[in-house]
Amino acid sequence: MIYLDHAAATPLSEKAQKAMAPYFSELFFNPSAAYLPAVDVRHHYEAAKDEIAHVIGAKGADLVMTSGATESINLAFSLIKTDSDAEVLISAVEHAAVIKNAKRAGNYQLIKVDANGRVDLDDFAAKLSPKTQFVSVCLACSELGTIQPISDLAHIIQAERERRAFAGEKVPLYFHCDASQGLGLMEVKVARLGVDLLTLNAAKIYGPKGIGALYVGHNVRLQPLVVGGGQEMGLRSGTENVPATIAFATAIAEAEKHLYSERKRLAELKNDLRKRLADLPNIIFLGKDKIQLPNYLPISLLGLDAERLIFALEDRQVYVSTGAACSASKGVKSSTLLAIGLNDKEIAGSLRITMGKLTTAEQIAEFSKILHEIVENELHRLAR
Amino acid sequence: MIYLDHAAATPLSEKAQKAMAPYFSELFFNPSAAYLPAVDVRHHYEAAKDEIAHVIGAKGADLVMTSGATESINLAFSLIKTDSDAEVLISAVEHAAVIKNAKRAGNYQLIKVDANGRVDLDDFAAKLSPKTQFVSVCLACSELGTIQPISDLAHIIQAERERRAFAGEKVPLYFHCDASQGLGLMEVKVARLGVDLLTLNAAKIYGPKGIGALYVGHNVRLQPLVVGGGQEMGLRSGTENVPATIAFATAIAEAEKHLYSERKRLAELKNDLRKRLADLPNIIFLGKDKIQLPNYLPISLLGLDAERLIFALEDRQVYVSTGAACSASKGVKSSTLLAIGLNDKEIAGSLRITMGKLTTAEQIAEFSKILHEIVENELHRLAR
Repeated sequence: MIYLDHAAATPLSEKAQKAMAPYFSELFFNPSAAYLPAVDVRHHYEAAKDEIAHVIGAKGADLVMTSGATESINLAFSLIKTDSDAEVLISAVEHAAVIKNAKRAGNYQLIKVDANGRVDLDDFAAKLSPKTQFVSVCLACSELGTIQPISDLAHIIQAERERRAFAGEKVPLYFHCDASQGLGLMEVKVARLGVDLLTLNAAKIYGPKGIGALYVGHNVRLQPLVVGGGQEMGLRSGTENVPATIAFATAIAEAEKHLYSERKRLAELKNDLRKRLADLPNIIFLGKDKIQLPNYLPISLLGLDAERLIFALEDRQVYVSTGAACSASKGVKSSTLLAIGLNDKEIAGSLRITMGKLTTAEQIAEFSKILHEIVENELHRLAR
Repeated sequence: MIYLDHAAATPLSEKAQKAMAPYFSELFFNPSAAYLPAVDVRHHYEAAKDEIAHVIGAKGADLVMTSGATESINLAFSLIKTDSDAEVLISAVEHAAVIKNAKRAGNYQLIKVDANGRVDLDDFAAKLSPKTQFVSVCLACSELGTIQPISDLAHIIQAERERRAFAGEKVPLYFHCDASQGLGLMEVKVARLGVDLLTLNAAKIYGPKGIGALYVGHNVRLQPLVVGGGQEMGLRSGTENVPATIAFATAIAEAEKHLYSERKRLAELKNDLRKRLADLPNIIFLGKDKIQLPNYLPISLLGLDAERLIFALEDRQVYVSTGAACSASKGVKSSTLLAIGLNDKEIAGSLRITMGKLTTAEQIAEFSKILHEIVENELHRLAR
């Protein structure tokens, strides 16, 4: 198997799986119970939150644990009352969860991106109005891996906040960043990014599915989406998912430890793959290497149909993605690919190749060979 | 260790842990991906949902998977717009999640319960008005284990629906039941219960934490709480928690298989324990055996302080609960115990003893011995 869809899902790290196992069996206690073994479990849980928070330069108490990135994003957006006149700005290359929440909020605009999918700071500054209450831009876009200029956006936002304060205007302005893609592959520090809210996802960094977190800055008064027993400082009720949180902490610490070596390794693999694929007659490389995550190689094979390619690759046990795999709605053209100005033909032939821990140099060579064969066959078939 | 807090948390069944393990490693794929191994995972996921649904006499497509009972309850209540004039009726012995959601809905009343914690059908019929839109009553109350007359309530609700239809009134009326306690220990069939919405929790039936479901009847047009990629028929976005769902299915199938033998075993243990504790000088048994879950023995030890008892028991490696352990808000008097008319002294001395798979006859004998010693010591200490 050659798995090149790490942006869609990652296997759970063995270390993380080992770390979580006892919390299913001998340490299964409800962390809200009063007796000592349960209190111990609560301490382990808090320590795991601290560990996760530490990686982003925060404290455990700044994190609200959720069931994943989508819930985190929804929780962040709950700052905006639906159908209010609050203005929302999101980039044109956001995940479906951000787009749907912006739509639900009522009054939103897209920040333009360039041909690489990077947000246009001038367009952002122009669209940021005295009524803007919420800005959401991803750390790296999930289809292209393009890294966004988050701290530049934060500076513009901070200037607007200062203008409002000086003018005596009371309209709040929050900055949320979805770090689902990028975490574990780049330094992510909330202070340096300048965000108020940051979405983290365990499932993309070799942690388990079903767990995520929302970092909440000290100046943000969040409203809970889910109410009940009052867990997570009242911001997200429900018995804490202790095993998954422990595994998340283990996975993120592991990613942090190997951050630089893994980045380097992936960048080399990507460079190698790019060179190997460059002679394909109809290839376009999407995005720009310098501002792209080191594990992303999105391409378009002009004139071919990505779906057919995926099935042909699948026959050879090679797995890549077309568009964002975490969307259940099919048959819709990728808003990201439209936003960077691709035409129908370019979109139809687009594949997202994302490498990761499972990827080796041998696999890259083999994948290149297989893709060449398949493209040749397809071009041959179409030429008949 | 003698663990008598099964209503707060249960260890993951070994079978369930084994069943979920491959979905962390070799079957880690995102079920929304297009290639075959991911499609296989989606089929396993759908089959697991079918298996869970089958136990309650429903189909997989009737279930929305959530992160647990609290989220399920919040999702059910999202049918009611907050601060509308819709009236909500809940029993006086509900879980914090139901109470908080009723409060958030704005206009709610409590249905009275008798001294055993069972809802008063006359009071319910009296309070059910043409404006009532949502009724939420637990299958069994989490502090007392008292089983509620759900199908009787459903008949009254159905009569009101028919009256509305006949009168041409358009106000909808939904009936939600939180089956967190009771599932796995009694037959739970949605048709027989007559509910529109049913909350299921894996963590109480030897499944993993962080997974639950909401059964949604065919006549209910639910609104999603969490939007994004459109998973769960658009009703709950976010990458599916495949491993936890597989484990949930395994656990519920196991519980179903052993339902009658385990009920019998627990009822015998409870009977034995009740006899053994009957000679404690200051004991009150709460609730009524005949309408109580077979694993529940809630008691009050008059004149003693439950918190002190819990710590004394903890020294002997015996773990029981005071009040609902899944509430993070401490120091608040149990609304359930107030609702059944207990006085301060009775509430102060109340313990919730809940047995389960880990409980043996030897443990019951040992627990009785230890509790006798502790009560004697405490009474002695207080008499000095």
